[in-house]
Amino acid sequence: MAEAAAPRTHRTRSWWGWGWADAHPDDAECVAMGALVPGTLARPLPLPRIADLRIGPPAATPPAALAPLVTDDPAARASHAMGKAFRDVARALRGRPGRIPDLVAHPRSDRDVADLLEWAGEQGVAVVPYGGGSSVVGGVEYRGDAHRAVLSLDLSAMDAVLEVDTAGRSALVQAGILGPALEDRLRPHGLTLRHFPQSFEFSTLGGWLATRAGGHYATGRTRIDDFAQSLRVVTPAGAGTSWRLPSSGAGPSPDRLFLGSEGALGIITQAWMRLQERPHHKASAAVAFARFQDALDAVRAVAQSDLLPANCRLLDAGEAALSGASHDGSAVLVLGFESATAPVGDRLALAVDAPLAHGGTADPTGGDGAPPDAAVGAWRSAFLRMPYLRDGLARMGAVVETFETAATWDRIPALIDDVRSEVGAAARKATGHPALVNCRLTHVYPDGAAPYFTVIAGGRDGDEDAVWDELKAVAEDVLHRHRATITHHHAVGRDHRRSYDRQRPEPFALALRAAKDALDPHGVLNPGVLLDA
Amino acid sequence: MAEAAAPRTHRTRSWWGWGWADAHPDDAECVAMGALVPGTLARPLPLPRIADLRIGPPAATPPAALAPLVTDDPAARASHAMGKAFRDVARALRGRPGRIPDLVAHPRSDRDVADLLEWAGEQGVAVVPYGGGSSVVGGVEYRGDAHRAVLSLDLSAMDAVLEVDTAGRSALVQAGILGPALEDRLRPHGLTLRHFPQSFEFSTLGGWLATRAGGHYATGRTRIDDFAQSLRVVTPAGAGTSWRLPSSGAGPSPDRLFLGSEGALGIITQAWMRLQERPHHKASAAVAFARFQDALDAVRAVAQSDLLPANCRLLDAGEAALSGASHDGSAVLVLGFESATAPVGDRLALAVDAPLAHGGTADPTGGDGAPPDAAVGAWRSAFLRMPYLRDGLARMGAVVETFETAATWDRIPALIDDVRSEVGAAARKATGHPALVNCRLTHVYPDGAAPYFTVIAGGRDGDEDAVWDELKAVAEDVLHRHRATITHHHAVGRDHRRSYDRQRPEPFALALRAAKDALDPHGVLNPGVLLDA
Repeated sequence: MAEAAAPRTHRTRSWWGWGWADAHPDDAECVAMGALVPGTLARPLPLPRIADLRIGPPAATPPAALAPLVTDDPAARASHAMGKAFRDVARALRGRPGRIPDLVAHPRSDRDVADLLEWAGEQGVAVVPYGGGSSVVGGVEYRGDAHRAVLSLDLSAMDAVLEVDTAGRSALVQAGILGPALEDRLRPHGLTLRHFPQSFEFSTLGGWLATRAGGHYATGRTRIDDFAQSLRVVTPAGAGTSWRLPSSGAGPSPDRLFLGSEGALGIITQAWMRLQERPHHKASAAVAFARFQDALDAVRAVAQSDLLPANCRLLDAGEAALSGASHDGSAVLVLGFESATAPVGDRLALAVDAPLAHGGTADPTGGDGAPPDAAVGAWRSAFLRMPYLRDGLARMGAVVETFETAATWDRIPALIDDVRSEVGAAARKATGHPALVNCRLTHVYPDGAAPYFTVIAGGRDGDEDAVWDELKAVAEDVLHRHRATITHHHAVGRDHRRSYDRQRPEPFALALRAAKDALDPHGVLNPGVLLDA
Repeated sequence: MAEAAAPRTHRTRSWWGWGWADAHPDDAECVAMGALVPGTLARPLPLPRIADLRIGPPAATPPAALAPLVTDDPAARASHAMGKAFRDVARALRGRPGRIPDLVAHPRSDRDVADLLEWAGEQGVAVVPYGGGSSVVGGVEYRGDAHRAVLSLDLSAMDAVLEVDTAGRSALVQAGILGPALEDRLRPHGLTLRHFPQSFEFSTLGGWLATRAGGHYATGRTRIDDFAQSLRVVTPAGAGTSWRLPSSGAGPSPDRLFLGSEGALGIITQAWMRLQERPHHKASAAVAFARFQDALDAVRAVAQSDLLPANCRLLDAGEAALSGASHDGSAVLVLGFESATAPVGDRLALAVDAPLAHGGTADPTGGDGAPPDAAVGAWRSAFLRMPYLRDGLARMGAVVETFETAATWDRIPALIDDVRSEVGAAARKATGHPALVNCRLTHVYPDGAAPYFTVIAGGRDGDEDAVWDELKAVAEDVLHRHRATITHHHAVGRDHRRSYDRQRPEPFALALRAAKDALDPHGVLNPGVLLDA
């Protein structure tokens, strides 16, 4: 079998936590953060070590022809065992990671992918597709024991930009490319995908497509779906490529069935993506609100205009305090415009009118004493740093997690209130300490919005993942009661299955099951996501 | 059984041709139009009469419980036999309409629909959903003989607006509502769907959704898909409703499988639709081009800006002459903006810059000597009148049809050239006369455009539909060679099946077949559209 794939950078990815191993907060920082959260430990949990895991021999061996693509190296296997949700990190810290795959494969071509799927189907080996490994919903972790062995199918060796059509602003890109590498290769052409999820550094195009990732834009085309022009999909029943089309009305969209299929129907190996000219004009502003309901009314007015701000983020008082945007109990609305076509000052001025009419106060400093663009930059740095801080708090035994949803405007106020009060009460009951439950709106639409919640609570020593599971069950029931989706852009994976099954219309469930059985007759593709294995 | 449903207006729909029976051109107008097309008849064909058709007794009888919903009235059956494509009109004029359904049902509730589907499944009766009957692709016409009988499922009695959410700008609407009735019922709320296909008067919400109709907007959200918030679908395997959500990342979009399913997977009985405030601000302009390639470059620049004109229609010289927009061989680009938020003069001015930079000449008269808004109004009247004129020409034995497609920008110039030359040559060969092949771009995207072709040719006496079939085969091969979709917004139906089957990726074909078999186990739902019966 092959050696573990050589890393493409001198930095090392953390096998158990977010991002780069060298970017984790040190012990002193962990202690300082922990002191802010009642009910945490006095000292940080030690960094978990792969050497401490019991990793048995692989339960399957690939044939000689596939051996060069496959490794059973323990470090490779351990680092492909789970995604990066809080419960993944907590389990790793407690020495209880999820099922460690038997093998990790690095295909280099569609042919490799097809051959691996064929072998897996014959042998009853589960195939778990793996892009950047940043799933926060159990999307890359095998559960159960219905398969003889588990193969993690890591697409990182398929990371080329194969073709760029500058006149049509599109590029043919392999699925395993990470966000920064993609933007690096588009930049010389003056083009950009402008898809910047929080996981940007550590997630791949294929992962974004398979999970219908939310990206850069707060309004309009918020989701990767709209930027996919054509997909190539390899399934156990054969491969196919949709035509490059700007739009088509020929039957149900073939791509839309595979967008969001989370590896259950096939492997997306490459895609033609719609790109944009890099924006030359930018402007942003912040508006503060004493009353959250006023802020909701204001942001709805902006969402229902045709101004289409690129950024339209509403932070509640807790979230504004946490990110430094305000410290006086105000909610803060941050509006940002960008354009490659024309200056955006007029659009910004028009967009700010609505919040002012709804009781807002213009904050020329962007909420933190610095000019608005600096505030946006600071927020962005904090945003990208957040998962590392989460892991530092996890080492202090805290429970730190986020979840997001979307609902129509009529349901938003009570939904947010109920999540705050019911998850807060559940946390107090589970841990004996008060918890922080903050909310921001990350994406807004004419007909509704996407609230994003952050929960920070003390834990129960050794039982942090179970505490989160208890809080999550409460949160899921609130969401279900308000008919708010179980996920706006984090995907379903395995963690959200209970709510997804309740939410999904039955005719679609029947169709999806039938499609799965037709494309994956041996049931080896990412078993357990979206559908039962 | 029931009497034929009472008409809801004093005007009578034409059973054989477009629209209202009283709006057809009279014989003198037909002769005048025919004189403009070489190779047509000297006198118009007589108006076809239902009484001249041989309509046998129905081959199936519904049970007593369903009888009140069903009629076997010959006029009702004849008027549900076909859609309104040129080949439908030509066949009616020649006394050879398509298969006349045995029964026409007018369900009043989801329960009625489910009961009818259950009976049809038990009896092997084909169910052809029927909204406004405006299909131009054989979408409402049964072909073949694999079923014991044919039931046309006319949804026009399910035409209520059930609920309006003004704060969230959405409405729950039954599928059988026609365009004007929908807008009438939304107007008191200050809201509009702004979906104005050419068939607006004679097509229904359910038909728009089932065929992924193209609507009002030339850029951005051009298609009904983006305005569907939630669908209710009744299938032989059960009914289901997707949640009202502004956006969701929970698995593949359930609605997107039924959008464009053309009645093959289930009956869309109602939908929550996203609405808009009625626009208060409008402005438009026209730019003329001596060279068509300059116009293409200009319209691409507009499409790649973020200005999002509501109207962005490029007429080639022939189309401009036909519609009166220019008479000097110029191509004409018509740009229109509208907004409920703010005046649009600045956006219009910015949008006109690109065409001027690409060799265009601003035409303050909008191309016809009248102010631009009047030109737009005149174009709209001509646009709505066009299908009636087509039927007048059809009575003169002419071949008059349109088809539309979409392709990426790199393919657009050669695609348009090849359609013009190859369809033109085929028409000359088939009829012995030169033909008119015009093109306009109806919708434009950053990565491509949707060309819409009009063909006007002399016929072969008594054989007009066969001539069109010959020309269509040539056109389809040009489209396929250029990887241009077989339809941008007219749907696949039965007429486009050959090209659709060649275009559809194989994994999606397998999934669609499996979904069809799961939801429609007896194979009675609109047999032959999208998939073989």
